[in-house]
Amino acid sequence: MEVLITGGAGFLGSKLARQLLARGTLAGPSGQPEKISRITLLDQVAAQGFDDPRIAVMTGDAADAAVIAKALTPSVQSVFHLAAVVSGEAESDFDLGMRINLDATRILLEQARKNGNRPRVVFTSSVAVFGGDLPPKVLDTTPATPQGSYGAQKAMCELMVTDYSRKGFVDGRSLRLPTVTVRPGKANKAASSFASGIIREPLNGVVSICPVPPDTKVWALSPRSTVHNLIHAHELDSAAFGSAGAVNLPGLTTTVGEMVAAMGRVAGAETMKLVEWKEDPAILRLVRTWPGDFVTARAEKMGFVHDANFDEVVKAYVEEELR
Amino acid sequence: MEVLITGGAGFLGSKLARQLLARGTLAGPSGQPEKISRITLLDQVAAQGFDDPRIAVMTGDAADAAVIAKALTPSVQSVFHLAAVVSGEAESDFDLGMRINLDATRILLEQARKNGNRPRVVFTSSVAVFGGDLPPKVLDTTPATPQGSYGAQKAMCELMVTDYSRKGFVDGRSLRLPTVTVRPGKANKAASSFASGIIREPLNGVVSICPVPPDTKVWALSPRSTVHNLIHAHELDSAAFGSAGAVNLPGLTTTVGEMVAAMGRVAGAETMKLVEWKEDPAILRLVRTWPGDFVTARAEKMGFVHDANFDEVVKAYVEEELR
Repeated sequence: MEVLITGGAGFLGSKLARQLLARGTLAGPSGQPEKISRITLLDQVAAQGFDDPRIAVMTGDAADAAVIAKALTPSVQSVFHLAAVVSGEAESDFDLGMRINLDATRILLEQARKNGNRPRVVFTSSVAVFGGDLPPKVLDTTPATPQGSYGAQKAMCELMVTDYSRKGFVDGRSLRLPTVTVRPGKANKAASSFASGIIREPLNGVVSICPVPPDTKVWALSPRSTVHNLIHAHELDSAAFGSAGAVNLPGLTTTVGEMVAAMGRVAGAETMKLVEWKEDPAILRLVRTWPGDFVTARAEKMGFVHDANFDEVVKAYVEEELR
Repeated sequence: MEVLITGGAGFLGSKLARQLLARGTLAGPSGQPEKISRITLLDQVAAQGFDDPRIAVMTGDAADAAVIAKALTPSVQSVFHLAAVVSGEAESDFDLGMRINLDATRILLEQARKNGNRPRVVFTSSVAVFGGDLPPKVLDTTPATPQGSYGAQKAMCELMVTDYSRKGFVDGRSLRLPTVTVRPGKANKAASSFASGIIREPLNGVVSICPVPPDTKVWALSPRSTVHNLIHAHELDSAAFGSAGAVNLPGLTTTVGEMVAAMGRVAGAETMKLVEWKEDPAILRLVRTWPGDFVTARAEKMGFVHDANFDEVVKAYVEEELR
């Protein structure tokens, strides 16, 4: 079977691809495991670091229908749609966000519809669909009331994925990802970028500026658990998703201060001194609209996982990315 | 001030236009009433029956950006966006629904953004955004989980209207309309068309086939109250809408059987014999996904209205449309 990962050169897309290569199989149309023969990694830039004949690296614009037609052929039975403009950038460049976060998703779903083979599509939404007057804990039944363009675009796509699935055009599954941390690599334009930076930079001996106060709540999930959940979402039978739309993934409720303290416990107290606290009003405005605490009964019943505590998240980062 | 009504040749659009002509004013950008100098009625077909110099009749495709650029000029300060493909048709012709219900709304919002004058935009959504596993009464906090393409498209537009408003591109207000009944004229392709037909046809001495059983719950609002609420939504200060997005309008919980009984009380028992009960599975499937009972505390606090009982709704229809 063939797999397409959009945003495949990104950190999560690449990590997912490596995990799929190691597994070797995914559920086919019948639900039975099938051998993965090809994984196309589509992104604006070429995915790096793969040396496996099953990997096909492709560059192109995810909002260009011709590119998607080339990437999503009728032989592709599984799509992980990770390509997105991150929250901070979707807020500062509205048109770019609409194009990549909304239009590209529609083009992908339309291509799948045209192909006629009802591929499984795992769509990555975000807890940024929540905002405004929220209950103390976000429930599975809390409505999406995004207070940013990124969240609004993701919420629109969730509706589209659900309706295209109901119509039988695709077999779609939408997951609302917590803040994925600790991300390796460089800071990006996500308003939540600091949630990785405050761990990653100090562990590399570099100062990190934290733009939000220590008591800021974060609903966090490690990259390892995120990839696990993406694959789990693909493998579940569509009936498990019911009529309720996107799934709020489990996560850990922590605060920025607790995250830094966990780093101190795992890697030594001196790392904590490399975090400088300097508030940024634009980032704070977006981050404060996102909820920090959830009850994710539906996802847990469906078998999605979270990390035990933030110390484990830091340890996993050290193991996977620094050694 | 100038007003644009999309879907202006339709029954609700025309009724709204007549009401605006009679009022003579609407709130301007400052919130103070301003004299209405022009009402453009845009629709696929020419609006009929107007003899007032303030009315400009325009025909064109609401999903054609050139048409919208002509209809929504920078001198238009108020837009009532009623143009839509109804539920039954959006379900049978998916592409048409996406084009008129989703794309046309985006084109309208984009034109308003380009104009740069932040017009008030009243967007008509629908209780069809609800569906699936619903609580016995839909609350203001019940999430939109549409089970049809019409509801999905309307829910996507709500998110867009809210985000374009947050960004300051428009001053938008979204209302989720109950089933508007009794509509005059002919049956249309709305799955809820029967909810008017079972009253309208018998009152004209014509047989009406009811495709759903008598115990089917309907969340109903008369055309008179609907138009009142559309204007009220326009007149409210944007702060009254807060961050919660679309407003569930108040309505009456009734059943199809009670509606027919109300007609009997108002117009004579013989009218009831003109209703033939014959179930239609396709209509029943859609209608059954829509909720029949609501608690609309938010809307009532904001001053939106509903009808006293269904007898009054029938009487209003007789007064306004048959005399």
